[in-house]
Amino acid sequence: MKFDLEKAAGMRTPFYLYDLELLDRTLTELQAAAGDAHVHYAVKANGNPRLLSVIARAGLGADCVSGGEVQAAVDAGFDPASICYAGVGKTDDEIRLAIRAGIGCFNVESREELALLAEIAEDEGRPAAVALRANPDIDAHTHHYITTGLEENKFGIDLSQLDAAVDFAAASPWLVLRGLHFHIGSQITTMAPFEILCERIGIICRKYRSRGIEFKTVNVGGGLGIDYDRPEANPVAPFDDFFGTLRRGLRLEPGQELHCELGRSVVGQCGSLVTRVLFVKEGVGRKFLIIDGGMNDLLRPALYGARHNIVNLSAGADRPMAAYDVVGPICESADVFGKDERLPEARRGDFIALQSAGAYGESMASCYNMRPPAPAVFI
Amino acid sequence: MKFDLEKAAGMRTPFYLYDLELLDRTLTELQAAAGDAHVHYAVKANGNPRLLSVIARAGLGADCVSGGEVQAAVDAGFDPASICYAGVGKTDDEIRLAIRAGIGCFNVESREELALLAEIAEDEGRPAAVALRANPDIDAHTHHYITTGLEENKFGIDLSQLDAAVDFAAASPWLVLRGLHFHIGSQITTMAPFEILCERIGIICRKYRSRGIEFKTVNVGGGLGIDYDRPEANPVAPFDDFFGTLRRGLRLEPGQELHCELGRSVVGQCGSLVTRVLFVKEGVGRKFLIIDGGMNDLLRPALYGARHNIVNLSAGADRPMAAYDVVGPICESADVFGKDERLPEARRGDFIALQSAGAYGESMASCYNMRPPAPAVFI
Repeated sequence: MKFDLEKAAGMRTPFYLYDLELLDRTLTELQAAAGDAHVHYAVKANGNPRLLSVIARAGLGADCVSGGEVQAAVDAGFDPASICYAGVGKTDDEIRLAIRAGIGCFNVESREELALLAEIAEDEGRPAAVALRANPDIDAHTHHYITTGLEENKFGIDLSQLDAAVDFAAASPWLVLRGLHFHIGSQITTMAPFEILCERIGIICRKYRSRGIEFKTVNVGGGLGIDYDRPEANPVAPFDDFFGTLRRGLRLEPGQELHCELGRSVVGQCGSLVTRVLFVKEGVGRKFLIIDGGMNDLLRPALYGARHNIVNLSAGADRPMAAYDVVGPICESADVFGKDERLPEARRGDFIALQSAGAYGESMASCYNMRPPAPAVFI
Repeated sequence: MKFDLEKAAGMRTPFYLYDLELLDRTLTELQAAAGDAHVHYAVKANGNPRLLSVIARAGLGADCVSGGEVQAAVDAGFDPASICYAGVGKTDDEIRLAIRAGIGCFNVESREELALLAEIAEDEGRPAAVALRANPDIDAHTHHYITTGLEENKFGIDLSQLDAAVDFAAASPWLVLRGLHFHIGSQITTMAPFEILCERIGIICRKYRSRGIEFKTVNVGGGLGIDYDRPEANPVAPFDDFFGTLRRGLRLEPGQELHCELGRSVVGQCGSLVTRVLFVKEGVGRKFLIIDGGMNDLLRPALYGARHNIVNLSAGADRPMAAYDVVGPICESADVFGKDERLPEARRGDFIALQSAGAYGESMASCYNMRPPAPAVFI
């Protein structure tokens, strides 16, 4: 990864380092692959204002999950008409804010929300465009990385309840039924789940077509994964595969729009958490690399058991390799970034990077243990 | 729990509600049980400035794990001499800050840290008092709630390395070896682990006594649990049991001081996260209570699988019971507070409290999904 040791020497750690060149390259490759598909950037992955404005300037839409995110997207320059707003728990105030901002679409997660939205839209005197989030009930046992497409979770409208929601939306003068919305999970690294999703979407669309209902937009959600193990080898997600799979699988009608929501695959690889070694602690039968970044800065390992590739940015090729447990300073057993990691011999003060931390890093950070937030640095 | 529905009607949710009367009662009972033991409040449990100042005024010391916490403790009025500073990853700046603040003791977690501390103390021209955190290696398989007292984790100094650390501290003109420090884990609800700890401490102390080294302070750390299942029945932790167990088990020499670090048991029960029902979503074969508080406000359920007792504050005794999955608004499958919870029938707008959220609630909160921080309200 790009890193200027001399420039970094005087900087306080930890910090988030964002490689804007890689972000640009990612956006270029994404747009080439997407063609006329409508790509909404999932702001929850990283809402850093500078990253948002780069992504807005590239012409992507925004996928938001709160009033705060809608406002941030508008502030960053996203075209309001390209903003969609999802989430199971929208408040009245958030819905009003989004209607007033003139967002393009509400991704509605329940019939109860649909009724509320119609009510508020009427009160505001502005009809709201909606896509219904349907729960395609794809078996998580077949694909364990799929975690949100199942019947028993809080997301989406069950297929058995979709008719009622479609009828309600079609009948309401304050709702404009724009399309269907799906989202089957996160960090999906093979195309098979998307193939299954396309098949299910086809069945659903044909069913409603036979009743004379055509959905203008089909939003397949997000979920495209990145290579956490080998970020240098695969800095850009397989966008060609992704959109190729969707186009082949969906076979949309003329005039129908393909929408998707990508977050991790847009910003994941361009960000690293840069830390310094505080202590190389000689334990019994193991060495600990105690770094000054912790689970408050990067929660994914503690929360999901996720692993980020670890690099010693200070070590030249001359140093022998050694095994370390790489741990943070937080007073929690969960504050561990890697066990038995093979790294060049580390010294106090070395810069250690946790790679692929551009998504769900800064956005999930806290000040636990009263630690100041890790600032963002751009190269 | 105490809650004024009328007063709350106009308030934005979610918010942390702190019952200062219960905190006072807890502190009174704690001090009665503690006697001449030195109790340090673990600031990491909750660093809310108002709570800190109440606890400081009650005369407790502070157990800090970062420079930010040391500063907050000083600002809240804790006597610097009663502040101890623990943690595996102290930075140079944090150590300097703590020395200059005149804190009472550094709880040192490694020989490497000990050497650094001596260096900085010399540079500052002020000797630093230290307690060595020893790793008593208590078997987690016997007591699964013990998670930090084992050899293979990042905390503490292994017993086999303790001699070297003691010798180093005793020999340094810039270190004052004050005592030993232990901490075996969190949320311990039986006394057996503390009994074992006392036994181990006795063995260690006798060993060093035979060599002419007497430790002035014995710090047993924290870990005393609270009743998350029945907070109304057990609003105050079993402090009598805890201190009784320690006194019987440790049999300290005249002049030796018992120190401990309690966080959860001090503030855990006085705080609740108060939320409102956004939607009662009828799923297939289950109902979802979608509340406006999420895992960003209260991380423990998502991070540890912890359960907080859930109460519908708006429901009178007249409502029939029903089963709900209680979930937050965050776009994560992990944002779930309870499955199949038996609660009085809930309606949109009802106040729902997540109890026992005074510890590791506000302190671990984030703004994930760009949600504003839940404010603190005191009664």
